[in-house]
Amino acid sequence: MYTCSLERMKEKIAAFSRFGDAGHGGVTRYSLSPEAHQARDEFVRRMKALGAQIETDDMANIYATIPGSDSSLKRIVMGSHADSVRNGGNYDGILGVIGAMEVLETVRSEKIPHRHPLTAMIWTNEEGSLYPPAMMSSGVVSGKFEKAVVLSSKSMLDSSRTFADALNASPYKGSESSRLSADKYAAMFELHIEQGPILEAEKKDIGVVTCVIGMVNYRIKTYGQAGHAGTTPMKYRKDALYAATKILMFLCEKLDKLDPELVYTTGELKVHPCVHTVIPDEAEFSLDARHEKPEVVRQVVDVIQSIPPEVAGCRTEYKPAWSRDSVYFDRKLVGFVQQSADELGISNMTINSGAGHDAQFCSYIIPSTMIFVPSRGGHSHCEIEFTPPEQCTAGADVMLNAVLKADNT
Amino acid sequence: MYTCSLERMKEKIAAFSRFGDAGHGGVTRYSLSPEAHQARDEFVRRMKALGAQIETDDMANIYATIPGSDSSLKRIVMGSHADSVRNGGNYDGILGVIGAMEVLETVRSEKIPHRHPLTAMIWTNEEGSLYPPAMMSSGVVSGKFEKAVVLSSKSMLDSSRTFADALNASPYKGSESSRLSADKYAAMFELHIEQGPILEAEKKDIGVVTCVIGMVNYRIKTYGQAGHAGTTPMKYRKDALYAATKILMFLCEKLDKLDPELVYTTGELKVHPCVHTVIPDEAEFSLDARHEKPEVVRQVVDVIQSIPPEVAGCRTEYKPAWSRDSVYFDRKLVGFVQQSADELGISNMTINSGAGHDAQFCSYIIPSTMIFVPSRGGHSHCEIEFTPPEQCTAGADVMLNAVLKADNT
Repeated sequence: MYTCSLERMKEKIAAFSRFGDAGHGGVTRYSLSPEAHQARDEFVRRMKALGAQIETDDMANIYATIPGSDSSLKRIVMGSHADSVRNGGNYDGILGVIGAMEVLETVRSEKIPHRHPLTAMIWTNEEGSLYPPAMMSSGVVSGKFEKAVVLSSKSMLDSSRTFADALNASPYKGSESSRLSADKYAAMFELHIEQGPILEAEKKDIGVVTCVIGMVNYRIKTYGQAGHAGTTPMKYRKDALYAATKILMFLCEKLDKLDPELVYTTGELKVHPCVHTVIPDEAEFSLDARHEKPEVVRQVVDVIQSIPPEVAGCRTEYKPAWSRDSVYFDRKLVGFVQQSADELGISNMTINSGAGHDAQFCSYIIPSTMIFVPSRGGHSHCEIEFTPPEQCTAGADVMLNAVLKADNT
Repeated sequence: MYTCSLERMKEKIAAFSRFGDAGHGGVTRYSLSPEAHQARDEFVRRMKALGAQIETDDMANIYATIPGSDSSLKRIVMGSHADSVRNGGNYDGILGVIGAMEVLETVRSEKIPHRHPLTAMIWTNEEGSLYPPAMMSSGVVSGKFEKAVVLSSKSMLDSSRTFADALNASPYKGSESSRLSADKYAAMFELHIEQGPILEAEKKDIGVVTCVIGMVNYRIKTYGQAGHAGTTPMKYRKDALYAATKILMFLCEKLDKLDPELVYTTGELKVHPCVHTVIPDEAEFSLDARHEKPEVVRQVVDVIQSIPPEVAGCRTEYKPAWSRDSVYFDRKLVGFVQQSADELGISNMTINSGAGHDAQFCSYIIPSTMIFVPSRGGHSHCEIEFTPPEQCTAGADVMLNAVLKADNT
């Protein structure tokens, strides 16, 4: 078994935390921003120093490749994203890039023999924070998103600027022929933080990710009648917020009876006109529900469709916003991750991913899988996001050995 | 019995609807705006034509007075406000000004004998839409608001501009000695639309208003823990919106058991960060509750205070935002209104006001009362606000005769 360097990992985590440092322990590093370009430049500088060959594709994804002993074999790629949400942390995404760099550095410094070329990569715009949607480039490369549509995505900060403008201004825009594809790549590994509390609670250092779970997202609306809070007797009211509250309770009661692994969330709720002396005439809320099994997701939809057309005198309306099916990772690669962790004596458990990741779209192109490390307190997408360097390094160790197992097949 | 002129009422309603006409059937006429000054100019022009003497006080309230037969007697005043909310209707406030004008016009045209001087007036900034708070000038004149505080009120549209700036720029700013006071005024009547659905539902043309009901207004907050909608199992969640929803249901259940006349409203609810994939870490909502009897309002406060300190793992917090006690109108004047309606053969009922009005503050200075006319559909503070001209005129008829009864005491 080979292991990576804790000191090198610490140094890289600290180095990349400077790009977009927002001054409160975290970063704001929107994709293709000057800060994101600083991170890309540093990645390229370090990979060139190892002797890696640099390529970029038409979505500005970057590939840094060191040759293997058999030039006829396809590449094995490791990577994640270097962009962050607004006031995000120092681990989400970038840890998978740092881990990939560390694997190549270890292979070179330890002179580890390998047959396949090995590639470390950065996916462009996974978060979609400035230019939606999320997982934009893996979506395009896998054919799940139409390139023309995402190119026209407008900046959340300046609607006169599109993603195409940002891409054309980037020195990392390359050619479509450099894209990750099944004829050049054999397997993909993505190291990532869990972004949830399970590994910490279960006291495991590694999550062996088996799938990205399926989801549905609905918008639910109620329509009532505005009125003066002081002059409208209760019996004459059609209070859209009261109706929304009743629907929320109805949904919770029904959904809590479904599979205990189901997660569902109302993160957004808006009331109109939202004035304390006015009975609301409209309320709208989101319902996001996720489960590995399609039959459970189907039960959620059944519950939503059982919302009565009228609640507390208010007309109700629901419509699906989007959904995705569960995506299972490659069994053989998942096995390599688990065996590597076991052989290294690192505590581990299988886990699924409730969040979307580039590896999920990548799995439509080539065998792919993911490795999770714990998120302290389950925090993510915030500045207090933290994973101890020892666990980050354990993640890199597992990825290195899983890649070497894949190299031997 | 004397009656007013339906044709004159129609003409005035149409004439004043032009000042601030927003082009969709209603008006936006913020206090002391150019549009509000047009309405004031028209009021003054018409009252001067009747021979009324015009005075203005330090809050730019306008008083138009015609003499009575006994110059030693105090004035009887009728009035309301000429300002509106944003995209308000053609009745709220201005109808009470138009009704007061109509009474003076009828007294003059019919040569109705009266002993007291009679005054038609406009209160400045009742809505508080541009410069909060509402009922600003009656609040100052009655000593309920500190003048220095309201003068520093900032424009909702331009925070560099204060109410003092607007007042200093108005030709209607006069002297404090002209204020409505107990040594110069004997009684006050305010004609107003109901702003609720009761008179229409009960098929009554006139509401004999007995009081403005007491109220409390609370802000209730919940504090949870943000987390990813996909990666946080239900058992680890502290969902601030779920906690707020449970509290809302708890409050409804308890408050619905109190007196059936109680009205309560959650008009405002805000969720943070309000992103569909993020478990909310904070939720905040308003609770406005109104009832004539202080013991019922007290019971509402008891219910709020029984909210558990922790709900669904989230810390809860409540604090009073403001409150007011019930204000009872002068019994003798209320009786004059009822007798006048009965003698005129106009259907009527006693009613209380759930909304605040200038007459409420005025009642701390001199005997005061109000007359309501129906609001079609209960609509108010919106462009579809409507009261048929016949009912507006019935309101003026009742005010005229009630004033004459007061004149005889």
